Amino acid sequence: MIQPNIPDTDRPRVVIVGGGFAGINIAKSLKNAPVQVVLLDRNNYHLFQPLLYQVATAGLEPDSIAFPLRGIFKRQKNFHFRMGEVKSVNAADNVLVTNIGDIRYNYLVIATGSNTNFFGNKLIEENAIGMKSLIEAVQIRNYVLKQFEESLLLSSEKEIRPKLNFVMVGGGPTGVELAGAFAELRKYILPKDYPELPLHLMNIYLIEAGPRVLAGMTEASSKKTFASLEHIGVKVMTNVAVKDYDGHNLLLSNGETIETQSLLWSAGVKGMPIAGLPEAEVLPNGRVNVDEFNLVKGSKNIYAIGDIAMMVNDDRFPKGYPMVAQVAMQQGKQLGKNITASLRGRAMKPFRYADLGSMATIGRNRAVAEFAGIRLSGYLAWVAWMVVHLLNLLGFRNKLVVFINWFYRYFTYDRGTRIIIKRGAANIVKLRQSVYQTDPLLP
Amino acid sequence: MIQPNIPDTDRPRVVIVGGGFAGINIAKSLKNAPVQVVLLDRNNYHLFQPLLYQVATAGLEPDSIAFPLRGIFKRQKNFHFRMGEVKSVNAADNVLVTNIGDIRYNYLVIATGSNTNFFGNKLIEENAIGMKSLIEAVQIRNYVLKQFEESLLLSSEKEIRPKLNFVMVGGGPTGVELAGAFAELRKYILPKDYPELPLHLMNIYLIEAGPRVLAGMTEASSKKTFASLEHIGVKVMTNVAVKDYDGHNLLLSNGETIETQSLLWSAGVKGMPIAGLPEAEVLPNGRVNVDEFNLVKGSKNIYAIGDIAMMVNDDRFPKGYPMVAQVAMQQGKQLGKNITASLRGRAMKPFRYADLGSMATIGRNRAVAEFAGIRLSGYLAWVAWMVVHLLNLLGFRNKLVVFINWFYRYFTYDRGTRIIIKRGAANIVKLRQSVYQTDPLLP
Repeated sequence: MIQPNIPDTDRPRVVIVGGGFAGINIAKSLKNAPVQVVLLDRNNYHLFQPLLYQVATAGLEPDSIAFPLRGIFKRQKNFHFRMGEVKSVNAADNVLVTNIGDIRYNYLVIATGSNTNFFGNKLIEENAIGMKSLIEAVQIRNYVLKQFEESLLLSSEKEIRPKLNFVMVGGGPTGVELAGAFAELRKYILPKDYPELPLHLMNIYLIEAGPRVLAGMTEASSKKTFASLEHIGVKVMTNVAVKDYDGHNLLLSNGETIETQSLLWSAGVKGMPIAGLPEAEVLPNGRVNVDEFNLVKGSKNIYAIGDIAMMVNDDRFPKGYPMVAQVAMQQGKQLGKNITASLRGRAMKPFRYADLGSMATIGRNRAVAEFAGIRLSGYLAWVAWMVVHLLNLLGFRNKLVVFINWFYRYFTYDRGTRIIIKRGAANIVKLRQSVYQTDPLLP
Repeated sequence: MIQPNIPDTDRPRVVIVGGGFAGINIAKSLKNAPVQVVLLDRNNYHLFQPLLYQVATAGLEPDSIAFPLRGIFKRQKNFHFRMGEVKSVNAADNVLVTNIGDIRYNYLVIATGSNTNFFGNKLIEENAIGMKSLIEAVQIRNYVLKQFEESLLLSSEKEIRPKLNFVMVGGGPTGVELAGAFAELRKYILPKDYPELPLHLMNIYLIEAGPRVLAGMTEASSKKTFASLEHIGVKVMTNVAVKDYDGHNLLLSNGETIETQSLLWSAGVKGMPIAGLPEAEVLPNGRVNVDEFNLVKGSKNIYAIGDIAMMVNDDRFPKGYPMVAQVAMQQGKQLGKNITASLRGRAMKPFRYADLGSMATIGRNRAVAEFAGIRLSGYLAWVAWMVVHLLNLLGFRNKLVVFINWFYRYFTYDRGTRIIIKRGAANIVKLRQSVYQTDPLLP
């Protein structure tokens, strides 16, 4: 048993797994608590997932929506970051087993979030592209731009068509925003970049298995969104499910087939539990049952927060809270306060979710937003969307770079970052193995 | 023989291989010429190489120094871009053989630039890291940040030392600027990001085989640079060559050994010629002999410009022009004018190099610059360096993003982009093979 080199102190140690919205919020809220905070993540950055779709569509550089975790906490004395991957938890001994060694804990907080859910369809999983990580977004950008480059080399419509059919599956905010961004690309960028491309062959589909897009919002917002998407040329299909996809032919539940080489999947997410948690409490969708204090049921000092946590204590959400950033942030803050309170001999408070509303953009100048009983759509909602996202993005530099990109794009109708970064054939040396050898060192 | 889908016209076709400084300058200067311009590059972007070292040291995002080639030429009607790699030239038939098919040409312009030169030492080539491409710079950034993360996991000085010894080989501008940026990282960033790191074990070496650093500048500038580097804590060794490097032990010509896992190699470059050029005219360093009109000797309609071209027509440069951006840009412009002139029945003009000076930064607030008989150093040279580089960077968005980054860094002493982008284990689908199958689609 190797012990990674974390200093031993008299303070109880809170080990947090995952530096997403939930993880960084609990770490911050423990700033002045009499504990040692250890944050573990397989990446060294916090990712602002709501803007991933803009990276995927060449609107933002990857670096502008990632913020180094060490940077966030550089003034927090009780904080220690370690980059590493969790293997399992040994609850009997209060030890977390990781690829960088075993880490002892007094409190363990699971904030591993969620990943793309292909609902068990292996063929789709092999051929579709998910969008939950930075590298996936960069991969989509590379891949989509290559489709355009390759289309130019072809002369037969039959061959070009599948390269220019882009299909988003899942009518949630990610699917809607992606489809809108694709429509924007087609309208403003491609005619200038690829004057030779037969753009009339390009189709953008949005496929939703349920009866409406943005099902988490009101029916009025769903209708507006549907109309806006159709207006900018997205073919929206509701009540249609994906049956199968082999990389070329997409088979739909209504019997139709679409020839496409690009299936972007945001139809669902699932929790990412850790081996060693009480098995009975891990649900088929990967979420873990917790009580109203985020304590994992059947355990004493293991908590789960954010997407991974299945908490049912609110009549509005009989199937648990939605897997969104707001819940993660609020649960993180609350658990931080609760741990502090219990160490100081005070009672913990049960979690109560304050729904601040939701919003989604639909291409340029269009969005829908709902908050505090108000419903906005169109230009005003679009501006609100930008302000909210800018304010929530971590770090002054990132805010500024994102703002510049948006400002530039608004006036020039251009997208700056449409570059294909690839591993070159020549002169990339094979770097030495490292302790992180499960991951190739190269991006 | 597949023909990539380039429209046939009555105009003579100029095929340019490589979208670096030379390639984009000739393409631009042919804007109004009665020709069809076809630019081929294996990447879809132009790379501003002078700022690569800032990407490698987490000062700039990769996207901010790359500009999509299609974007540069979107208003040039006679221009066609194709992404692809050259295999060989068939001079007898005036055909360029590439991975996307055969391309007929009337004029062929080789502007393939240069790549890292390890002077035949295979062991060094396997273990050192070059820095000529965007992916190499991202790789260096990932690798260096991982060294710091990994050092934290270790407790013995013996194990930590090789991880914190960073060695730059080559005292040209790249080596000097890299060493300066590392010194800046050590002084301003690492103490905040890694308060637990034993920074007194970190050493930055700059090794130059010749008698002085920045040998292309005056002796006074070399001395200033040497003193500045030593002042910020870089160990500079001149008249010392690298003998061998196995990934752990670096053997020097003075008998010393340095334990290091990071050897950054910018000690030389070599041309990248294309198979099928007249063999007698290809030099051992990969450059190709050209006459004073950039015509490849022994050929009728094949030209070479930039780093790849070996032209000896100037007493100041008896061994050919230096392999720098200025020569490439000027040769590109001149050849464009010459081709236009000859098509209009006018005489071509021989190339004359106008040396506009040279400059290099040495960390924060320090630089050396020489132009028009003036020699600057210190703060003023540093400001001049920034202005010159900003002005030469392509695209308004890139200028703005780079400016923001510099501005931010100047006042906060922070570097925003210190993130490790890596391929995740989970959920990266294996994408379909494409016409570009020699390169993996992933970055």
